[in-house]
Amino acid sequence: MAQYRTFTAADAVEYARQHAGLADAQSLVDAQEVGDGNLNLVFRIFDRQGVSRVVVKQALPYVRCVGESWPLTLDRARLEAETLLVHGQHCGEHTVKILHYDAQLAVMVMEDLSNLHIWRRELVQGHYHPQAAAQLGRYLAQTLFYTSDFHQHPHEKKAQVARFINPQMCEITEDLFFNDPYQQHQRNSYPPALEATVAALRDDDQLRTAVAALKHAFFSHAEALLHGDIHSGSIFVGDGQLKAIDAEFGYYGPIGFDVGTAIGNLLLNYCGLPGLLPPREAADAREQRLQDVKIVWQQFADQFLALVAEKTRDYALAWPGYAAQFLQKVLADAIGYCGTELIRRTVGMAHVADLEDIADDAMRDACIEQAINLGKVLILAAHHVENIDALIARIRQNG
Amino acid sequence: MAQYRTFTAADAVEYARQHAGLADAQSLVDAQEVGDGNLNLVFRIFDRQGVSRVVVKQALPYVRCVGESWPLTLDRARLEAETLLVHGQHCGEHTVKILHYDAQLAVMVMEDLSNLHIWRRELVQGHYHPQAAAQLGRYLAQTLFYTSDFHQHPHEKKAQVARFINPQMCEITEDLFFNDPYQQHQRNSYPPALEATVAALRDDDQLRTAVAALKHAFFSHAEALLHGDIHSGSIFVGDGQLKAIDAEFGYYGPIGFDVGTAIGNLLLNYCGLPGLLPPREAADAREQRLQDVKIVWQQFADQFLALVAEKTRDYALAWPGYAAQFLQKVLADAIGYCGTELIRRTVGMAHVADLEDIADDAMRDACIEQAINLGKVLILAAHHVENIDALIARIRQNG
Repeated sequence: MAQYRTFTAADAVEYARQHAGLADAQSLVDAQEVGDGNLNLVFRIFDRQGVSRVVVKQALPYVRCVGESWPLTLDRARLEAETLLVHGQHCGEHTVKILHYDAQLAVMVMEDLSNLHIWRRELVQGHYHPQAAAQLGRYLAQTLFYTSDFHQHPHEKKAQVARFINPQMCEITEDLFFNDPYQQHQRNSYPPALEATVAALRDDDQLRTAVAALKHAFFSHAEALLHGDIHSGSIFVGDGQLKAIDAEFGYYGPIGFDVGTAIGNLLLNYCGLPGLLPPREAADAREQRLQDVKIVWQQFADQFLALVAEKTRDYALAWPGYAAQFLQKVLADAIGYCGTELIRRTVGMAHVADLEDIADDAMRDACIEQAINLGKVLILAAHHVENIDALIARIRQNG
Repeated sequence: MAQYRTFTAADAVEYARQHAGLADAQSLVDAQEVGDGNLNLVFRIFDRQGVSRVVVKQALPYVRCVGESWPLTLDRARLEAETLLVHGQHCGEHTVKILHYDAQLAVMVMEDLSNLHIWRRELVQGHYHPQAAAQLGRYLAQTLFYTSDFHQHPHEKKAQVARFINPQMCEITEDLFFNDPYQQHQRNSYPPALEATVAALRDDDQLRTAVAALKHAFFSHAEALLHGDIHSGSIFVGDGQLKAIDAEFGYYGPIGFDVGTAIGNLLLNYCGLPGLLPPREAADAREQRLQDVKIVWQQFADQFLALVAEKTRDYALAWPGYAAQFLQKVLADAIGYCGTELIRRTVGMAHVADLEDIADDAMRDACIEQAINLGKVLILAAHHVENIDALIARIRQNG
């Protein structure tokens, strides 16, 4: 097996020629490194006509945006490729296609999606993709049902849990979601004007207890093979399509974490819109985001229940009514994790363009403060919200 | 490494000579096979003076009480030995000491406990061991705290979860606890007179939904390294001591499962006592059992909380008040699993002497019916019982 080395553009082209499975492999001639993420090299590979044909992604042995001082396992490339392959098996329609991967080189070759757009950029610019929310709900339902105890044979599920243990990537989430924002930490970053708002998070007893419970479930509830980082920057949309990418945080965890992360990023956009668009457009887009949240949940829940009714293999879990009760727990979990996403994206290390791109300082601070407060409300209210309409009502009350 | 072969008594003696670590190893001369369990060969190894010195336990590649038609992984010997070693590390006082094990031969050498007695036999005969309940609570607190997310480093915990996946033994529990008693199944066995009581379990909507949730948590909630089968037949008592044995069902599961199994077996005895002892003694022993249940929980909870306060390593889970909230969930889980233990030990395949040893048929049926009904009440009430006193009150109401 090949030993790890960091790819140059020329390496990436050569690798794509060998492994992309293209009939005209020799026509690949050029590569452009487009990795704007925090962790990896990403090369678009072009042919002689200048057409982007495939993508080569390679993990670096450290956190790219921090540097070599924060080393990070190369095994995440295997975990990402294998998560995407499993998700692709259950929802090929909405998962980027993996053409090849090599665990030693920490590299994978993927289909080119340059005809699509990163959803976050579209949301920031006010470009509405009316099918995206329903498609995301479908992706969540399919990937999470088929890898859950409802469907997976218990032997297979346990083997997959072991195969997908992901200690280093999970640790990033464990720290960044559940620890950093609730203490003074050098990784945190938020507007100085919001010091009092942020400080209040640290000694709110109910909030800290609720965050502990969410972290404990993240640690221990192996409900399904999660994407693990399904925010709007990990999703391509366009042409009526939606494709999830970037699954290096994949592991067996609580279903509500994926659902909550997805909804949370729509709400980060909701909070940022008044600073991103003119007032009337912002108001319309905010309504669209609330509808998107409702549609993501409704599609997820409806399709999950339909899959349970048709395809549950487990004798006990197939009892009519159980899945609906379970989804109540998933909704509560999702609302809680959604709240932690709002807080960690505003108070913690990793921020989002939906708020960072707001030009006016005072407006940006106000939008960030709204996101923090909404996050707090959602974490505290998670177990008291009966259904998706009640959630939307809560969001309106607090935003 | 040695290839698997079924041990004869002579093999067991020879093996003990080699691996028990005794200074006078050559004095071991005789073996007696005493396995009364369902799964294994168990040899007591005697020296020239006829003193039982160590125990050699070997897993058979099938379910002993059923026969070769029900094959069973030999890997359970490794899982048992490693579970007991981990538990011994955290609570050596109350865990049988493993002197040696060999995964290939599916064999382990253990300390001899023939000065002690199986707790179930003592309970059946009305022999009270006043320290046992507190010691069991302590065993549960120590073993479950130290292997939980409160204490174990997240990397280590995940590695241990993978090491202790136990598909075949878990499947036995998954089937026998959560499926069989709630359907017509050839493995079930109960008095014909109780047909209506048993049939009513099958179509009780609330009950079936609650059992599904308990099974789902058994599948997916990796909270701590469980013993997995901590009933009164897996516990030696006497001389003020208590030692847990027989951990082949060990895996990372919901803490409430171990606590509920422990309590459930005390309640099986509680239900059987009127048929085992004369009326006044039975009444006294029933009060003792209720006290035992209370003490097991109280000791477990108090010591778990004390360990959390002193030794929690996780930043978020250390928030004061979180552990107490978590223990509320553990209590609810424990009550539910306790209920499933009562039902699977009366309706399902594996029965207990606390009920089977009752000589009078009508009395036995009445005691079994009480156990089934109490099990049902507990499963349904699990989330509505606020504390251990409320649990004891519920039991009195229904028994």
